[in-house]
Amino acid sequence: MSRPQPLSGFPELLPRQRIVEQQVVDHLRRAFELHGFANVQTRAVEPMDQLLRKGETSKEVYVLRRLQADGDGDAGLGLHFDLTVPFARYVLEHAGKLNFPFRRYQIQPCWRGERPQEGRYREFWQADIDIVDQGELPAHYEVEVALVIADALRDLPLPKVRMHVNNRKLSQGFYQGLGIADTEEALRIIDKLDKIGPDAVAKLLIEDVNATPEQAASCLKLASISAADTSFVDEIRALGVSDPLLDEGLDELAAVVEAAATAAPGFVVADMKIARGLDYYTGTVYETIMEGFESLGSICSGGRYDKLASDGKNTYPGVGLSIGISRILVPLLQSGRLDATREVPTCVLVALANDEERPAATALAQRLRSRGIPVQVSPSAAKFGKQIKFADKRGIPFVLFTNEEGTQIKDIRSGDQVTIDVDTWQPPAGDLHPRIVAPE
Amino acid sequence: MSRPQPLSGFPELLPRQRIVEQQVVDHLRRAFELHGFANVQTRAVEPMDQLLRKGETSKEVYVLRRLQADGDGDAGLGLHFDLTVPFARYVLEHAGKLNFPFRRYQIQPCWRGERPQEGRYREFWQADIDIVDQGELPAHYEVEVALVIADALRDLPLPKVRMHVNNRKLSQGFYQGLGIADTEEALRIIDKLDKIGPDAVAKLLIEDVNATPEQAASCLKLASISAADTSFVDEIRALGVSDPLLDEGLDELAAVVEAAATAAPGFVVADMKIARGLDYYTGTVYETIMEGFESLGSICSGGRYDKLASDGKNTYPGVGLSIGISRILVPLLQSGRLDATREVPTCVLVALANDEERPAATALAQRLRSRGIPVQVSPSAAKFGKQIKFADKRGIPFVLFTNEEGTQIKDIRSGDQVTIDVDTWQPPAGDLHPRIVAPE
Repeated sequence: MSRPQPLSGFPELLPRQRIVEQQVVDHLRRAFELHGFANVQTRAVEPMDQLLRKGETSKEVYVLRRLQADGDGDAGLGLHFDLTVPFARYVLEHAGKLNFPFRRYQIQPCWRGERPQEGRYREFWQADIDIVDQGELPAHYEVEVALVIADALRDLPLPKVRMHVNNRKLSQGFYQGLGIADTEEALRIIDKLDKIGPDAVAKLLIEDVNATPEQAASCLKLASISAADTSFVDEIRALGVSDPLLDEGLDELAAVVEAAATAAPGFVVADMKIARGLDYYTGTVYETIMEGFESLGSICSGGRYDKLASDGKNTYPGVGLSIGISRILVPLLQSGRLDATREVPTCVLVALANDEERPAATALAQRLRSRGIPVQVSPSAAKFGKQIKFADKRGIPFVLFTNEEGTQIKDIRSGDQVTIDVDTWQPPAGDLHPRIVAPE
Repeated sequence: MSRPQPLSGFPELLPRQRIVEQQVVDHLRRAFELHGFANVQTRAVEPMDQLLRKGETSKEVYVLRRLQADGDGDAGLGLHFDLTVPFARYVLEHAGKLNFPFRRYQIQPCWRGERPQEGRYREFWQADIDIVDQGELPAHYEVEVALVIADALRDLPLPKVRMHVNNRKLSQGFYQGLGIADTEEALRIIDKLDKIGPDAVAKLLIEDVNATPEQAASCLKLASISAADTSFVDEIRALGVSDPLLDEGLDELAAVVEAAATAAPGFVVADMKIARGLDYYTGTVYETIMEGFESLGSICSGGRYDKLASDGKNTYPGVGLSIGISRILVPLLQSGRLDATREVPTCVLVALANDEERPAATALAQRLRSRGIPVQVSPSAAKFGKQIKFADKRGIPFVLFTNEEGTQIKDIRSGDQVTIDVDTWQPPAGDLHPRIVAPE
C-alpha cells in the first residue's frame, strides 16, 4: 500500500493537537456538568424521514447502504448532520423515562456532505446543551443557557468571543406592528443583510413581502440597533412601532442582556440583525463570533424552539446552543495558535541500564502510576543519551534512573538531577499532565 | 410525529446508564494515559479499498452516499468496522510526523451491518490500545499490552475477567514440526474447536491439510493444554515435537504469562486453543472472557501483527488489544447489574422562595460551582415540598435554601438540615459526583 492521502473535509489531528482538543472538551464537559447537564449520546444514524424534516441542511445528508444489502430495513438511514434532530428524536422516544425539565449536553461528531471550506467540514464535532420541558418552557431558561455558555467558554485560551442575541418575537412583532403580513419571510430576508447589503435587502422586502419603502427602511433601522446593555429597548421604542409580540420580545431580550451583563460582563450583546435561517426558532436566537476569526461565521449558535419535538399528544419546547468544536479548534491548531506542552501523557520515562532490568523498571513505574503519575519504561537499554533523546523528542520532562547513589530523577530541560524517594516524589503540578499553550 | 421506535442493533442509553458508561470510559482513559498512551481520533470513514483489505468483516461495511451525489469523489467511502484498520492507515498517512515506537489509545464507535444478537451491535464502542514501531517491534511490548489491560480492567465493577493468551509462532511451529504444510489453514480449523468439537476438527485437519490421524490427534492435544503459569512449556515439550518457530513461541508466551503472574495474579492464562480468526496476527494472540457472560464471546481481543501497515518502503509492526465497551456494558446495564447513584451530575439544588429570588439564587449557585460542586437552580418557586420532590426524582442529594436562620442545606435522604457557609461547605466525597453501583 502506498502512503494514504488525506480526505478533504475530514480533518484529523496529530497526537499533540488532539491533546488540546481533549482538554477543551474536558473543560466544556466540566462546565456543563457543574450546571447540572447530564450527558446523552445518540447513535450516529437517524431514519431519513427524521433527517429530511429540517429543510435545507437535509440536502447534504450522507445516506447509508450495507455492502451486502438484502432489503432488511437498513435502507432509509442517514448520518445525523447536527445534534438537535437526534436529540428531539431521543426525547420523544424516551420521554416516558426522562424527568422534565430535562437538561442534557451532547458532544459528538456530525456529518454533512457539503463542499469543504474554511470552518466547514464534512465531519465535525459539536458540543450542544439543551433544556427541554413538557408543555411549557419558562423564559428564564433562555437566560440560563447563555450564562452556561459564557461559563463554558471562559478560561479557554481562545481569542475573545462575543455572543450576539436577538429574539424572534421582537423582530416578528416589530414587522407585524409595521403592518407586514409575512413576518417569517421578512426575517429570512433580514438574515441576508451581511451577505447582500441594505439596498438589496430593502428591494427584497418591497418585492417579496410587499413592504412600502418606509416599512423597509424601518426594518433596516431595527436591524442596525445593537447594544451591550438594555438601552436597545428605548432605541427600538423610539422607532414608534407597537405590538404585543414586540413587547414580549423586548422583555425577554432585556432579561438575557441584563443577566449576562452581571454574570459575564462584555460577553453578550443585543443585536437586532441576528435572525438565524432556521424556521423552527420561536424566541431568543444566539450567534457567537470569535474576534479575528469573523470569516468562520458563528462558532456557537442556537435558540428557543417550541415545536421541534412533538408526538401529537405532548409537545417538548426547548432552548439550546451548539458549540462548533471543530470550527473553533481546527483553524487554531492548524495555524499553530494553540499547541500542547508535549505530545504524550507521559511525565516520567524510566530509563534502563540493561534489558534484564525491565521487570524491576516496570515495577518502579507502577509505583509512580499508583500515585497518578503517567510513566512509561524506555523501549530499550540504549545508551543513556539516546534514552534522554527519546524523552526529549516527545516532550517528556523527567527521566528516572538508578545509579550507585540510588534512584535519581533528571529534569531534562534544566539538566537538574536529584535523588528521590519513588513513593513520595511529586512532579511540579504544571508538569504532571500536558497543558495547552497559546504561542504568540 | 408519532413516538419513534428504537433501531435494532443501535443501543442507546438513558442518562443514568450513560453516567456508568462515561465513568468506565474515564477509568480506561486514565489507565491508558498512566501508561503513556496518547489519544488518537480517526474520522468515521475510510476509503472502501482500505476497508476491504481485511477479509471477512468487510462484507458488513456500511457504504456512504451523498443524498445529492454528483460524482465528486464521495463514492468509495465506508464507515470503519474496527479501530485497527483506521489506525494502520493513520500511521502510514502521518508516519513522518509521529515518533516511533508510537503508543496510542482510541475510543470510538464502529459500525457493522451484521445481524444484531447478544453482545453484537450495528453500532458499538471500542477502546483500543496499540504500540507500533518502525521496522522491528521488540517482543516485550507483547507482555506490556497485557499488563496495561489488566491495569485498565482492574477496579471496574465488572464480573471476574480472565485473559486467554496463545502465540501464533507456538501453534504454527508445532504444526510445522509435526510435518503439516499449510499451518495457517490448520490454525483456522483449530479456531473452530469450541464451535464444532474435536471430532469435526480432526476430520477437517485430515481432509483439508492432509494431516494423518496421529498428527490431528497431536494438534488436538496441543489445543487442550492451558495453564496459569509456565508449566505449559514442559507439557508441550512432552508432546515430542521440535521446531525453531515453536521454541520462539514458547519463549514469548512464557514471558507474557510470567510477567502477568507477578503483576496481575490470576488475570492471564496460557491457552493453546486460542487461535483468532484473523490472518494478520503473527505472534501473541489474546482473548478475554467475562465470568458468567461466556456467551458474549471475547470482551477484549487482539494480537501482534507484523505486516498490517506498510507503505512499500517502511513496515510498521504492532501489537494491540481492543476492549468491547458496548459488548461489556450494554448487557450489564440493560439487566440492571450496573447502575448510577443518580441520573444527573447535580449535587445541590438551590430552592426558590419566590421568582424574584432567581438572580440571587443563580449567584449563590455560581459560588458553589466555583469550588467544583455541580449545582442547578430550581425550575420554579413551587411549594418547598414540590422542589424537594424535583431533587428526589433525579437523585440530587442536597437542597439549599435560605430562611430566617440563614443559608440551610438539607440532605433529602436523611432529612438532616444544617446552617452552612456557602463558601466553605463541602459535600461528602461520595456525594460530589454520581457513582457506579452494582446492585446484587
